[in-house]
Amino acid sequence: MDPIITRSDIEEAHERIKPYIHRTPVLTSHSIDELAGCSLFFKCENFQNVGAFKARGATNAALNLPADLLAKGLATHSSGNHAQAIARAAKILNVKSYIVMPRTAPEIKKRGVRAYGGEIFECEPTLAAREETLAQVISKTGATEIHPFNNYDVIIGQATAAKELFEEIKNINMVLAPVGGGGLLSGTAYAANYFSPDTVVIAAEPAGSDDAYRSLKSGRIEPAQSQSIADGLLTTLGDKPFAIIKSKVAEVITVSDEEILAAMRLVWERLKIVIEPSAAVPVAAVLKVGDQLANQKVGIILSGGNVDLEKFSKLLSS
Amino acid sequence: MDPIITRSDIEEAHERIKPYIHRTPVLTSHSIDELAGCSLFFKCENFQNVGAFKARGATNAALNLPADLLAKGLATHSSGNHAQAIARAAKILNVKSYIVMPRTAPEIKKRGVRAYGGEIFECEPTLAAREETLAQVISKTGATEIHPFNNYDVIIGQATAAKELFEEIKNINMVLAPVGGGGLLSGTAYAANYFSPDTVVIAAEPAGSDDAYRSLKSGRIEPAQSQSIADGLLTTLGDKPFAIIKSKVAEVITVSDEEILAAMRLVWERLKIVIEPSAAVPVAAVLKVGDQLANQKVGIILSGGNVDLEKFSKLLSS
Repeated sequence: MDPIITRSDIEEAHERIKPYIHRTPVLTSHSIDELAGCSLFFKCENFQNVGAFKARGATNAALNLPADLLAKGLATHSSGNHAQAIARAAKILNVKSYIVMPRTAPEIKKRGVRAYGGEIFECEPTLAAREETLAQVISKTGATEIHPFNNYDVIIGQATAAKELFEEIKNINMVLAPVGGGGLLSGTAYAANYFSPDTVVIAAEPAGSDDAYRSLKSGRIEPAQSQSIADGLLTTLGDKPFAIIKSKVAEVITVSDEEILAAMRLVWERLKIVIEPSAAVPVAAVLKVGDQLANQKVGIILSGGNVDLEKFSKLLSS
Repeated sequence: MDPIITRSDIEEAHERIKPYIHRTPVLTSHSIDELAGCSLFFKCENFQNVGAFKARGATNAALNLPADLLAKGLATHSSGNHAQAIARAAKILNVKSYIVMPRTAPEIKKRGVRAYGGEIFECEPTLAAREETLAQVISKTGATEIHPFNNYDVIIGQATAAKELFEEIKNINMVLAPVGGGGLLSGTAYAANYFSPDTVVIAAEPAGSDDAYRSLKSGRIEPAQSQSIADGLLTTLGDKPFAIIKSKVAEVITVSDEEILAAMRLVWERLKIVIEPSAAVPVAAVLKVGDQLANQKVGIILSGGNVDLEKFSKLLSS
């Protein structure tokens, strides 16, 4: 049986989006390695355009649309980074973007969407409310929905982050990515499959929103409970990513908000880079399982850096 | 008349310390450029070993000591980053280090000194108390003092940061460095003198500790008042750096703590990197003078990233 996504799908997507995305650096830290007991390679998507890996998938999906559809604009619902990524892709391609965001989305992410000329439609922070609002927007505008994760072009775009990591660092034993809707994780799994086939793919998830953990156990998609400071990971898995994750991801490690906050602080203090709570989730997972990774080469996709400084400051000083 | 510091002094120092320091990246940001109205090139010494440019000068001075002196160890007084830099240099050279620190120094910096095996002697946060305590330590141990800024080997070492910037980015119109004791600023001025002679050198200083501003006006060293969140810049100018600054620095721009905090936030949010308040001072200066720099190529030495996250969080959430 042919796979859903081919090697050349990812290679072609990478070439397609290259003019519009950064090849982000891979950082290392002796002091974090000492704490973790293994060699960590941090793929810094916090330095990506719009501050997150989401620029990859959104740009790939937009560039793949036929001209007549594209002309009517792009639409999506997103809690944050994908929203900015779609607004940016629309701006690059000179079309309109219509973004449905939960009213609880961080202000910094709303500002980002507006800065790219995106039109925001606020809704209640539930999947049902998002989908309903989006359907209304689409029926009015004729825009094409680019789903944040349940879309193969998006998944293929996200795969290019891990592809770059594997090109730069050879013989990585395992790679960790955070999981929310599953776009980054499933893309990372496909990238490992083709570009570093001996690498074990591990998911990291907030314990307060452990739907991927439970879904892999039960074999069917379980709804997210949405309780975590990792605001980018509160969505339920999509069926397209889930099918990939079921066959290609070895394990889901869950971590508490305290562990996420401690990992975020550690990265800020030692690597001197700003990452958002969602990006700290795989770091927390590595620190949690510690000994199991002893002396391994471990890749971590640092998914983004769009943190709400006020909110984080309150957490840190409380 | 021969200059105090020659071109080959700096070139030889650079070769000497290269095995022990990072060649730090130069970052840019479209969105900060838009705000500032000029092209900014951020030399990221927050990514340097010990999290600050201080690793350069301390390592150069230590490597230049005769073996018999070196064997008795290194000593210094410092409010923070230089302390860690000396402790690290001593560890690399396998000798002891004795560090006099004001009791008000940030905990993160004390932890850093201890992590490198440095022995800390706490004192009151005044120059007199620091010098007295250091004299006692030296008379007991026979260690050699490496002053944080009033030392030519240290100044020459600090010059290598701007040298790297000028090697990477050509035709910089002006370069800004923060000024506390004057080591980084005087080194930057010498680096411009030899490696980018058309570049204007500008100092940036907290308004609450504007001794360099007043000293350049009066022509003699004025004492610092030491009131600013930029805790690395509260010392009075040394006479060695001052002589250089008088002849080679065009201007001192002073900025308020509010401006420093806003600049720090801006860098965290847009560049996604962690810088300490002292490093934000030249960024604040650029944003303050705005129009005067229109369309210029402006280099900024981001001096370090050792921020006390608790303290900063309280400032941000207050």
